[in-house]
Amino acid sequence: MKTISTRKSIRKYSKQELSDETLKRLLSEAERTPTMGNLQLYSVVITRKDEMKKKLAPSHFNQPMVEDAPVVLTFCADFRRTTLWAKERKATPGYDNFLSFMNAATDALLYCQTFTNLAEEEGIGTCFLGTTIYNPKAIIDTLQLPRLVMPIATLTIGWPDENPKQTDRLPIESILHNETYNDYTPHLINTFYTHKESIEENKHFVELNHKETLAQVVTDIRYKKNDNEIMSANLIDALKQQGFLD
Amino acid sequence: MKTISTRKSIRKYSKQELSDETLKRLLSEAERTPTMGNLQLYSVVITRKDEMKKKLAPSHFNQPMVEDAPVVLTFCADFRRTTLWAKERKATPGYDNFLSFMNAATDALLYCQTFTNLAEEEGIGTCFLGTTIYNPKAIIDTLQLPRLVMPIATLTIGWPDENPKQTDRLPIESILHNETYNDYTPHLINTFYTHKESIEENKHFVELNHKETLAQVVTDIRYKKNDNEIMSANLIDALKQQGFLD
Repeated sequence: MKTISTRKSIRKYSKQELSDETLKRLLSEAERTPTMGNLQLYSVVITRKDEMKKKLAPSHFNQPMVEDAPVVLTFCADFRRTTLWAKERKATPGYDNFLSFMNAATDALLYCQTFTNLAEEEGIGTCFLGTTIYNPKAIIDTLQLPRLVMPIATLTIGWPDENPKQTDRLPIESILHNETYNDYTPHLINTFYTHKESIEENKHFVELNHKETLAQVVTDIRYKKNDNEIMSANLIDALKQQGFLD
Repeated sequence: MKTISTRKSIRKYSKQELSDETLKRLLSEAERTPTMGNLQLYSVVITRKDEMKKKLAPSHFNQPMVEDAPVVLTFCADFRRTTLWAKERKATPGYDNFLSFMNAATDALLYCQTFTNLAEEEGIGTCFLGTTIYNPKAIIDTLQLPRLVMPIATLTIGWPDENPKQTDRLPIESILHNETYNDYTPHLINTFYTHKESIEENKHFVELNHKETLAQVVTDIRYKKNDNEIMSANLIDALKQQGFLD
């Protein structure tokens, strides 16, 4: 994983084909990721058809990479396969609950990230779409996901056709806590965020959005309270519909 | 990541020290993992003190690796740091909701898995403990996690002192769906699970538990409906307590 330190999300892809063989090999290698009780509580829907990408795009706020990428992967928390297996084997499954959803979501996300790391190591570009859980019902409809299957992450992938600048990260000290949570004082917040706020791109972002601070761009433009509350309700509804919540 | 195909979870660790330097370097490298809006919605609590491991152990059903590992890492979904940053910068955060919890949990899990991939590539052994979300309140107390911080994954790590057999995985065809979800017929379930059920270790596991099928070991012994429902309630309570659910 010597590529990790130079990685960046790739949103533009070349016309070069990403073969089924390469894709399946990487998805297969990623199966070594740890999983709950070795049950592999995940499924992946592979989208290659333009017609299907077009249907998925609105769920991802029409971000152009959904239609432009050669392949879109939707990683799903899946307790259906395990449940059907149990029923075929004189066993009584009990996975229509919130804990089981979180177990399966965990499996799906860990698997997704190992796949990402493997793909990027081979030079494939990926972009993680967090929009998958914003309004999951349309994705569920489009991909025909049955009960106990929930879309949880989407990757667009392909061979890179751009070389964007790497984005900044917080100093590792801001992430780590020794033995107990070391709460953040205003002084520590200043220390940890000053670099991010001083970066030319981020300053430009603030200007462009006519805001006073970078944090205001986050709270007032990108991730707004009202949107979050509406989308929380969407997500909870979808979990109920898929049988993971009463 | 040439080590991926031979990896296995490691539960026994040698006396060899795992240095702070190595640990911090790997945790720092893993920061390149994609994250929502580049906000890095995670924190990690590092446990090295015996006294703290002892306190954490019951939350993980006293699995011996919690007390035996040189280092225990608790990965947390963390919207607190971002929220405090916003407040310091004249911005009004709105992340006390379920969507924001899922955003932060996603960030934490992806980060955790890149760390795992990096650590294992250097020969470090890891074991993922799914028990973190079974009864999170005790972990929250022990690690003194404030509002908008939720423990989501635990790794025990150290230099390996065992070389266990690799566990089986389902054929990749059982995981993948082209364009739409291809539901599992009884025939497909048989095709996909026959290998798993035929493995000597798994057959022995069935005998040992006096069950008729491997699936019954899963549903009746390891992951029981009644337990799942109790732990779902625990998890939902903890999410309310930490401010992520009304």
